[in-house]
Amino acid sequence: MSILVVGTVALDSVETPFGAAHRLLGGSATYIALAASYFWADVRLVAVVGRDFPAAYRQVLQRAGIDLEGLRLNEEEDTFAWGGRYHYDLNDRDTLYTHLNALASFDPVLPATYRNSQIICLGNLDPRLQQRVLDQVSSPAFVICDTMNYWIEHTPEALHAVLRRVDCLVVNDAEARQLAAEPNLIRAARKIQTMGPRIVIIKKGEHGALLFFEEAIFSAPAYPLEDVFDPTGAGDTFAGAMAGFLATQRRFDEAALRQAVVYGSALASFVVERFGPERLLALTPEEIAQRVAALRQLTAFPECDLRPLLVQSGLNHAT
Amino acid sequence: MSILVVGTVALDSVETPFGAAHRLLGGSATYIALAASYFWADVRLVAVVGRDFPAAYRQVLQRAGIDLEGLRLNEEEDTFAWGGRYHYDLNDRDTLYTHLNALASFDPVLPATYRNSQIICLGNLDPRLQQRVLDQVSSPAFVICDTMNYWIEHTPEALHAVLRRVDCLVVNDAEARQLAAEPNLIRAARKIQTMGPRIVIIKKGEHGALLFFEEAIFSAPAYPLEDVFDPTGAGDTFAGAMAGFLATQRRFDEAALRQAVVYGSALASFVVERFGPERLLALTPEEIAQRVAALRQLTAFPECDLRPLLVQSGLNHAT
Repeated sequence: MSILVVGTVALDSVETPFGAAHRLLGGSATYIALAASYFWADVRLVAVVGRDFPAAYRQVLQRAGIDLEGLRLNEEEDTFAWGGRYHYDLNDRDTLYTHLNALASFDPVLPATYRNSQIICLGNLDPRLQQRVLDQVSSPAFVICDTMNYWIEHTPEALHAVLRRVDCLVVNDAEARQLAAEPNLIRAARKIQTMGPRIVIIKKGEHGALLFFEEAIFSAPAYPLEDVFDPTGAGDTFAGAMAGFLATQRRFDEAALRQAVVYGSALASFVVERFGPERLLALTPEEIAQRVAALRQLTAFPECDLRPLLVQSGLNHAT
Repeated sequence: MSILVVGTVALDSVETPFGAAHRLLGGSATYIALAASYFWADVRLVAVVGRDFPAAYRQVLQRAGIDLEGLRLNEEEDTFAWGGRYHYDLNDRDTLYTHLNALASFDPVLPATYRNSQIICLGNLDPRLQQRVLDQVSSPAFVICDTMNYWIEHTPEALHAVLRRVDCLVVNDAEARQLAAEPNLIRAARKIQTMGPRIVIIKKGEHGALLFFEEAIFSAPAYPLEDVFDPTGAGDTFAGAMAGFLATQRRFDEAALRQAVVYGSALASFVVERFGPERLLALTPEEIAQRVAALRQLTAFPECDLRPLLVQSGLNHAT
C-alpha cells in the first residue's frame, strides 16, 4: 500500500490563551503526512512551498521518511502563510490572515512514480485541485477527503464533483451540518452519504468523533485532556493516522475503520499538547499503544442484563 | 434500598420546530421519579402541586408505583408552570415564562416514613430547599444532586453548602464550566470534585456524558437519534434512571456507576422521542436492554496491537 497526500504545506502563526508561536511548520499535508508516516513507510507528498521555506522544515519531513519528490518549490513566491487566534475555550478560532503566496498558482502535477498510489488523502484544498489529483492516479483503492466551510460556500459544484469520487469524507461537526444543511448530525451524515462517500467521519473536537460506515455508526471518545495548547492540525493528524493505520491493515472494512478512527483520535490527542507538530515528532510506539488502551478503557462498562429483574418485579410500565 | 426524589412537578408548555404541546406533565421530580420507577419499586416523591393539577397526571404517577405521600397539594395556588421554546437545532432553548405559583412557598417537609430513605435525588431546585431535605433524612447512603445556571449565579453559597453533602453531582457541560469558572471540561470536573462530590457527571446532550469517579473517567456515547422531538426532561430522566439502576445493584462503586450512566443515557434517549414523558410511560424491559446493547456496540472496536510492526519497521520517529 502506498499513501499519497495532497494539501498545503504552510508557515503557521498561532496565538492561544497560553502563548504564541510564529512561522511554525504547518499545513494540512504536513500534519497528514507526518501522522501517516508513523504507521507506514511509503508516504508521498504533493504540495508547494516558496522561497522562504526553511531547510530545517524540509529536513523534518525527510527524517520522517516522507517522499518529497512531489513537493514543488516555487522560487518566485513565499510559502503559504496562515495566522490564527484561538479563543478562551479553544473551540473557536479567528483567522488573522491567509497569505496564499505560492499556493495561489499551485498546480498539483503528480510525479510519474506517484500515479499508482493506493490510499489517496485529499487534504483541505480547493476541490478543483483535489479533482486534478484524482484525475492523475490510475487505480486508487481508497480515497479520503477533507474540506472546509470556505469550499462548501464558494465552490459547491466542484466540491460535489469530488465527493462523488470519495470513499471517506472527514469533516468537523459544523462542516457536516453546513454541507448537509441539516442541524441533526446523524441526519447530516446520512445525507452526505447520498452525495458519494459511503463512509463519513465527523470530528467533534473535545467530544470525540463519529464514524458512519454504510448503515453502522461508531462513536469514538476524545482522550480527556486537561491541557490543550494548540488545536491546530488535530483534524489533519486524525486523517493522516487513519490513512497510515489502514495501510497496515490492507483492508477498508468496518472493523478496520473503527480501529483507524481510534488511532486517529489517539494521535490527534498528542498533537494538541504542544505548539505545531512538535509533539508528533517524538512519539514512541509504546505511547501510542498506551493511549489507544486508554481510549478503550474510557468507554468500557461491565455487562448487566436487568431484564429478568424488571420482568419479574412487574416494574416495566408497558406490560 | 429506597429512593427519595425531591424537585418540581410542573405543567410544561413546549414549542419545538416540530410542533407545540401545552400543559404537559413535567418538572424535575416527575421525570426523575418516573425513570427511577422503571428499575425500582420503592420511589418516594417530595414536591408540591396546585389546585389546577389534573387528576389524570396524579394517576400517571400512581400507576408507575410512585409513593405520593410527600406530594403536597396547595389549594390556594396553581401548579408551577414553565414555558419554553427550542431553537432549530434543539441544543438551545429560550424560557418563555416561569410561573412559580405553588412552588414559591414550597417547604419540603418529609413524611416520617421518608426519613430513612437511602438514595436521595435532589432534582433541580433552590439549594436551600435541597438542604432542607438533606437535614431531614437520617442516614442517606448516596446523594445525587442536579442544579442549574440560575442557582450557580444567584445562590452560590447555598449551592456550595449542598455540594459539600453530595456524593454525585449531575450537570450539563455549560453548568459545569460555569460552576468551576473553567472552560476545559476535564479541569472543570476536577475542580468540582474538590467542592464536595467525589463523583461528577457531565451531560453533553447529543455528545453523550462523562463520568468522573474519583480519579477515573468514563465516556458514555449518546444514542444516535435522527428525530429528537422534545429534549425536555432528558437530563432528569438520566439522573432518575441512574438512581433506579443503582438501587438494583445496592453498591456505588465505579463499575456500578459506569453502568448507571449507560442506563441513564438509554432512558434519556427514549424520552426525547416524544413530547413530555409520553415515551417514558410505555417502555418494555426488552426495549431498554436493546438500547443498552446498542450503546455498547456503538463504542466497540477490535483489539489491534501495532507495536511489533512499528518497532520492527523503525517507523517510530522517537527512536
